[in-house]
Amino acid sequence: MTEKTVFHLPEGDESYGKRVFRNAANLLADTTVDSTVAVVVNGGGIEHVLTDAPAAEQARQLLDAGVELCVCQNTLEGTDYAVADLLDGVRIVSSAMAELTRKQNDGYAYIRP
Amino acid sequence: MTEKTVFHLPEGDESYGKRVFRNAANLLADTTVDSTVAVVVNGGGIEHVLTDAPAAEQARQLLDAGVELCVCQNTLEGTDYAVADLLDGVRIVSSAMAELTRKQNDGYAYIRP
Amino acid sequence: MTEKTVFHLPEGDESYGKRVFRNAANLLADTTVDSTVAVVVNGGGIEHVLTDAPAAEQARQLLDAGVELCVCQNTLEGTDYAVADLLDGVRIVSSAMAELTRKQNDGYAYIRP
Repeated sequence: MTEKTVFHLPEGDESYGKRVFRNAANLLADTTVDSTVAVVVNGGGIEHVLTDAPAAEQARQLLDAGVELCVCQNTLEGTDYAVADLLDGVRIVSSAMAELTRKQNDGYAYIRP
Repeated sequence: MTEKTVFHLPEGDESYGKRVFRNAANLLADTTVDSTVAVVVNGGGIEHVLTDAPAAEQARQLLDAGVELCVCQNTLEGTDYAVADLLDGVRIVSSAMAELTRKQNDGYAYIRP
Repeated sequence: MTEKTVFHLPEGDESYGKRVFRNAANLLADTTVDSTVAVVVNGGGIEHVLTDAPAAEQARQLLDAGVELCVCQNTLEGTDYAVADLLDGVRIVSSAMAELTRKQNDGYAYIRP
């Protein structure tokens, strides 16, 4: 069986971003499940998916492991960041709230670390 | 397809209440989904559904847009507030925890901003 | 009908631990539902399931009422605590993230107080 899990990352604190990415990595490393993993980022959480973010290396490792990183377009538009400031491979979604709803409707478990 | 989404609002910080209501408004505005939206309020979150709350205007707009605002009876009983202090249209539920459980059983996606 | 609800407890603040356990107790006390209740603890949340935790008595009452208290093994290994430091009856799970995923797949509603 393949499980599906979506993490919600709406906070900008550096320690919080690292925690969420560590939680996602722990899930990938847990051999009792075979989980497809996504992280949906909005609000302050955008700080963690910038190319120069303190958590950028963690985020890159997740992307390399096949984790889907989604960023809310509403959030992006509310900042001075451009798409070029985001890590390669990050996907922009119309809104984090719609994406979190769709993912749960598609069978993803929701975790807000 | 009509989606269903329930937001959980358990914190009293003014900025947090405004964030949750803004998230709900963003979901309503997102044309990629057609979501029925509810907000379940407990604990400090009750501060945001008082008639004189800083976020009262946001809450009223959500109510006008058809969003269901539920307040936990346990929370209400633990405060000095009366039903008359709450915004018109707010619904009182036996407990936030039971309501959040029921809503998820009824197909609502859960979001804790 | 029997509902199922899993609470997620990832924070170490004393007030937060007491809040989560109180939320779980409120759900058990709500006669409009007949919910099977679990609490999954990780990160700082481990502080609340130690034998000498400020919230230990609340946790013991939940265990006595049939609530399943799960602690993340990754978390335990990242601390200086031993299994003997945990309340009797606490169950250790391979990872909180996998357990939260499994529980939601098994029909549990998820609540992050």
